[in-house]
Amino acid sequence: MKHPGCWKMLTVAMCMALLGCLQAQELRGHVSVILLGATGDLARKYLWQGLFQLYLDEAGKDYSFSFHGAALTSTKQGQAFVAKVLESLSCPEDVAPDRCAELKGQFQRLSAYRHLATSEDYVALSKDIEAQVQHGGLREAGRIFYFSVPPFAYADIARNINSSCRPGPGAWLRVVLEKPFGHDHLSAQQLATELGGFFREEEMYRVDHYLGKQAVAQILPFRDQNRKALDGLWSRHHVERVEIIMKETVDAEGRTSFYEEYGVIRDVLQNHLTEVLTLVAMELPHNISSSESVLQHKLRAFRALRGLQKGSAVLGQYQAYSEQVRREQQRPDSFRSLTPTFAGVLVHMDNLRWEGVPFILMSGKALDERVGYVRILFRNQAYCVLSDERWVADQSQCLPRQIVFYIGHGELGSPAVLVSRNLFRPSLPSESWKELGARPGLRLFGRPLSDFYAYRPVREQDAYSVLISRIFHGRKDSFVTTEHLLASWGFWTPLLDSLAHEVPRLYPGGAENGHLLDFEFGGAQLCFSQQQPEQLVPGPGPAPMPSGFQVLKAKYRESPLISAWPEELIAKLADDIEATAVRAVRRFGTFHLALSGGSSPVPLFQQLATRHYGFPWAHTHLWLVDERCVPLWDPESNFQHLQTHLLQHIRVPYYNIHPMPVHLHQRLCAEEDQGAQTYASEISALVANSSFDLVLLGMGADGHTASLFPQSPSGLDGEQLVVLTESPSRPFQRMSLSLPLINRARKVAVLVMGRVKREITMLRRPDERSPSSVTEHGC
Amino acid sequence: MKHPGCWKMLTVAMCMALLGCLQAQELRGHVSVILLGATGDLARKYLWQGLFQLYLDEAGKDYSFSFHGAALTSTKQGQAFVAKVLESLSCPEDVAPDRCAELKGQFQRLSAYRHLATSEDYVALSKDIEAQVQHGGLREAGRIFYFSVPPFAYADIARNINSSCRPGPGAWLRVVLEKPFGHDHLSAQQLATELGGFFREEEMYRVDHYLGKQAVAQILPFRDQNRKALDGLWSRHHVERVEIIMKETVDAEGRTSFYEEYGVIRDVLQNHLTEVLTLVAMELPHNISSSESVLQHKLRAFRALRGLQKGSAVLGQYQAYSEQVRREQQRPDSFRSLTPTFAGVLVHMDNLRWEGVPFILMSGKALDERVGYVRILFRNQAYCVLSDERWVADQSQCLPRQIVFYIGHGELGSPAVLVSRNLFRPSLPSESWKELGARPGLRLFGRPLSDFYAYRPVREQDAYSVLISRIFHGRKDSFVTTEHLLASWGFWTPLLDSLAHEVPRLYPGGAENGHLLDFEFGGAQLCFSQQQPEQLVPGPGPAPMPSGFQVLKAKYRESPLISAWPEELIAKLADDIEATAVRAVRRFGTFHLALSGGSSPVPLFQQLATRHYGFPWAHTHLWLVDERCVPLWDPESNFQHLQTHLLQHIRVPYYNIHPMPVHLHQRLCAEEDQGAQTYASEISALVANSSFDLVLLGMGADGHTASLFPQSPSGLDGEQLVVLTESPSRPFQRMSLSLPLINRARKVAVLVMGRVKREITMLRRPDERSPSSVTEHGC
Repeated sequence: MKHPGCWKMLTVAMCMALLGCLQAQELRGHVSVILLGATGDLARKYLWQGLFQLYLDEAGKDYSFSFHGAALTSTKQGQAFVAKVLESLSCPEDVAPDRCAELKGQFQRLSAYRHLATSEDYVALSKDIEAQVQHGGLREAGRIFYFSVPPFAYADIARNINSSCRPGPGAWLRVVLEKPFGHDHLSAQQLATELGGFFREEEMYRVDHYLGKQAVAQILPFRDQNRKALDGLWSRHHVERVEIIMKETVDAEGRTSFYEEYGVIRDVLQNHLTEVLTLVAMELPHNISSSESVLQHKLRAFRALRGLQKGSAVLGQYQAYSEQVRREQQRPDSFRSLTPTFAGVLVHMDNLRWEGVPFILMSGKALDERVGYVRILFRNQAYCVLSDERWVADQSQCLPRQIVFYIGHGELGSPAVLVSRNLFRPSLPSESWKELGARPGLRLFGRPLSDFYAYRPVREQDAYSVLISRIFHGRKDSFVTTEHLLASWGFWTPLLDSLAHEVPRLYPGGAENGHLLDFEFGGAQLCFSQQQPEQLVPGPGPAPMPSGFQVLKAKYRESPLISAWPEELIAKLADDIEATAVRAVRRFGTFHLALSGGSSPVPLFQQLATRHYGFPWAHTHLWLVDERCVPLWDPESNFQHLQTHLLQHIRVPYYNIHPMPVHLHQRLCAEEDQGAQTYASEISALVANSSFDLVLLGMGADGHTASLFPQSPSGLDGEQLVVLTESPSRPFQRMSLSLPLINRARKVAVLVMGRVKREITMLRRPDERSPSSVTEHGC
Repeated sequence: MKHPGCWKMLTVAMCMALLGCLQAQELRGHVSVILLGATGDLARKYLWQGLFQLYLDEAGKDYSFSFHGAALTSTKQGQAFVAKVLESLSCPEDVAPDRCAELKGQFQRLSAYRHLATSEDYVALSKDIEAQVQHGGLREAGRIFYFSVPPFAYADIARNINSSCRPGPGAWLRVVLEKPFGHDHLSAQQLATELGGFFREEEMYRVDHYLGKQAVAQILPFRDQNRKALDGLWSRHHVERVEIIMKETVDAEGRTSFYEEYGVIRDVLQNHLTEVLTLVAMELPHNISSSESVLQHKLRAFRALRGLQKGSAVLGQYQAYSEQVRREQQRPDSFRSLTPTFAGVLVHMDNLRWEGVPFILMSGKALDERVGYVRILFRNQAYCVLSDERWVADQSQCLPRQIVFYIGHGELGSPAVLVSRNLFRPSLPSESWKELGARPGLRLFGRPLSDFYAYRPVREQDAYSVLISRIFHGRKDSFVTTEHLLASWGFWTPLLDSLAHEVPRLYPGGAENGHLLDFEFGGAQLCFSQQQPEQLVPGPGPAPMPSGFQVLKAKYRESPLISAWPEELIAKLADDIEATAVRAVRRFGTFHLALSGGSSPVPLFQQLATRHYGFPWAHTHLWLVDERCVPLWDPESNFQHLQTHLLQHIRVPYYNIHPMPVHLHQRLCAEEDQGAQTYASEISALVANSSFDLVLLGMGADGHTASLFPQSPSGLDGEQLVVLTESPSRPFQRMSLSLPLINRARKVAVLVMGRVKREITMLRRPDERSPSSVTEHGC
């Protein structure tokens, strides 16, 4: 041999072959599936069938299985139930009846019911599994515990599994959890913390069965396989809107005890529709078969969601609902439920891809049809020269261009993927999706079916079968991780809280709703298109809480003291600021606005940024009332709040923005850099008479405002316009406008969120001559 | 009398009554109308009829009239012609035949033909008018000279009127001018200057007959009378697009000698469609009956137009055109015209009301129908819950919402104003507009006519009749002022220049065009939706000038020397910069880009701002290569260019923007403020190794780059990173990166617009070690 390197390579190849042999000779893996709540509805309807499907798909391969239907039901009753369920299982269409009976027989022999209540029961189960494995000459590969039980039962079961029923080393544990996963962010977190005491993150598989719906499961693969065509289309530059819809015809009758606690947002939007939203909106990972990278990208999509406000949603309730609740839950005649059975929500994403694109999430009961879909409607960016009656579907760019993931039901009656013919011919995996036959007369989304390239699954699969297979294959990206769950609740909880006392619009149900539930958006606000027709649908009495904006008939230091709920307060303040700005620009040509830091003004910034289109930003100078001595890009910087929540969204000329010079010569608030003096001279040079048109102050818990602190006298009087101060809390060093300067302002607004503090004594001092008008905004 | 004040009041009342009597006794005003070119086509078709209408409308009131049809035609022939024209005049429908004959008789008696060639003729005319006025015991009110003559005749006539035919003191002169008003900005300016030597601005009435079209003339009154409904709709937040369209079925046969010089942009877009555009887009004056304020607002709309680029238009030419030109103008067989007979242009406005809304201007000959309209299509901002087949036109906000000013012809066959019923019921003056009757089966803009509130004029009026009345009433806002004319040419001329050598797409004509002329926009670019089908429509041979991007096979200092036409050059450079940015951000997390001032980079900034959506702006730091010692908001400031053309349109975090500190402590580039040192230390602190990722340089006529000047040695070598320099031209003081610092950059691009200068000797010096790669972009 001339090349010794070859030897090396040959050796390696031999070793690898040997290793392959060794692996093949290793003991066959065994997987135990324990279905908890095996006699429940979900198990009966979907889960046993899903397990049978798993068996059919996988048992011929590398693994053996055993299926344990477990519940609190007595052994005898449970056995009878399971026997009945197993008898009713069905095989795929292409399996001959004989073969089907044979397969069912095999599955039945591997399946057994067991009573599972005490920790001893779990110990026994574990021993039985170990015995079975040993007896069969197998190696335990893993255990799947499927929790098809109510949430209150979770903790006990989890404890028992963790302490008494974990597989031995080398085998995995997977626990499958069904919603609800909490009721809001706090309860979800508590539940997650509790479960986290028993299971590791990678052991938990939270099911959102929407992720198993074939059309939903196809979203990412579709985006991946049509990358080239979609690259130029999948952004705010081309997408006009995204609709994520689940309409139901049924109502909540018989389920009101559950429904009354949840309502449509928790029941459908927070989970199903949000999952779909992230699949559509997330950046597409390079490799979509990497669960980890899909999950990471999804999480980033969550982070880009713009916070919802009360005005982001419209709520409805079908007219018979309250009566159903009264009947089913023995409530008094006077009872009126506020639980929404219909919601439309407008979601925006704060990233360059989707900024400004409305994502419309809508779901409701007692509507005119049952259907679920995601519809991506593209902007018409063409002008078609021929008169419109001559336009042709597959040629004219002026006809609607849309991509629809049709989740199911509706006119089509099956899952489908639809792409307008004037967009592109999509690529779909031909083994699982086939072209839909002609359906003359069928129109979808305003166009005949023939306007679309339309595909349906070769074999329709139930969502649970799809998901059970994915659990077995460890595809975590088809499930809800703790991080995602909390991100989703973090997104929805503030809206739910703000809507808790809203009276939903009543609707008659079905097609009779007419246009009553249609809604419109302007900026980030949603509202019903039609005024509430009081006669047609009598309201449920006066709202339990005041919802309108309220001006208390009170004066605070000769100025109106305005109190309201936070949203109304902010809206009113934003209106006031705009009006002041418009007046100032009309009179003086400019508007000098000094803004405070902290988190209180953030909702105000958002309000100004997204709703006040008439604001004369081009003529507005923005100043800081105070700043922390950190670099401007530090998350602690007041300026950074301003940047993120306001400046990014508006058009103020660069040189009209006046951050405080707290970071000169690469050091922070050094006396010798004279930052305070520099800012003062900037103010003197640009602001007539150093009198700001409006100063917006916040107030700290200790009664401080700006960065002027009760215990630190600096800036409370004297000649200095801008001062360096010391805060009692981190970061200690601050720069602040001085009180004399603040008091020179034409107008001062104090925004106090939280309880109004009565001890505001430092703001105005009788010896100050300038007649500053103090408007107290608080709630 | 108890109250002496009453006496006073009574006296005043009496005086006023007396004054009224005196005024009533004043001599009756006389207006002479001199129609120059009285025997021409326009006069025959429209102008005599317009004058007759003026007589019908006004003669019964305060004025008497005389009409002088003037031309170079001999007196006898002219008289015969005029007699014939006068015989053919028609009265409005509601005038009885007898009365009509009587009125025509009166008009005929007041009208006479006169030969008008020499200055003596004008002197004679003036004397005749004076004699007539004196003889009739009248007072001369004014003279209208209507120029219905070719432009070459203007100067002589104007000189004669000015020197020999002005009315006496107290009477006005109005001269009415017909297009073309020049061929581009320069010729329009020359013509305007020439006319300005003879007439004052307020004496000139330039006709754009579109402004007399009833639907066009209704735009401002409609906006005014429906202010309340439109206030919330008339902006980018609600308008999806505006289409301003004039389609013709006729071609240019018989008129090619004119058409070949002008083409569709000069013939239709520069004037008619632009006028309509400004009426739609301008801010609505408080009082639309003030001509002055309408004109001011219109001018502001012109100023807000974003400059057009070559890519803003698509051009077509109907296939038979070149042959028609060859035949009509005896051109050789090889002749191919480049004159467009079809153009689509995408216009954007740079103001907060309209930013981002596409205004589509389109006109063409030999199309499938004759029609003119302005269509304002509103965005669908609703979600309609009912399945779409249940939507109802006047209730569903999801059906198209549009306002159409239907200028004429088309399916409707008359002017009209259409408002979708799901928008609002408009208010129109009932004396002049009436509701249109039902027209079953008629569809307009994709919807049945019954979906619209539709109005047509009570009495259809020819545009010239409307305008002649407005001239008489001195309504300058229905005409094109010199300022507007130049603003319009200023807007169109750069596009016309850039398109001068473009080969238009050939189209067969009529409905056969199919979708060949459909066009699409992405960002500010327009392009045909379909690729040019070479077989179907053979091209007119090779383009006379190269239009593709060309990389000359040359090297400049070891780097490719890239030469191209300006637009391709800029596009290529922008692509290069984006690619460099993406690479830098991927590798280092940031991209440090230093940009030059001057006007050369402006098209690059625009390109980057409006087309490069994938640019990692959030991670880009922008530095200045050099700056003039002026405040940042000075129009001379390099930073101001950057602000206007780039920063306004993108999202770079505030603290990633690094203007040069040329304005510290309210003074400019004072040595003691150490601005240069501050900038240098900012660079050292933020840019790794002080090595910019990319420096973009320009080059001055004297071979200087950055603000480093051949005659001034500062900054050419040495330790200093940033220097103050002296420019030979104003403003003299500059701040600049030094040559050693520039040469540390990873990449340097030199953008040279205009003739490539060969004498670039200062850029790299052999003693510099850093391997900067110099890419020369020039043309």
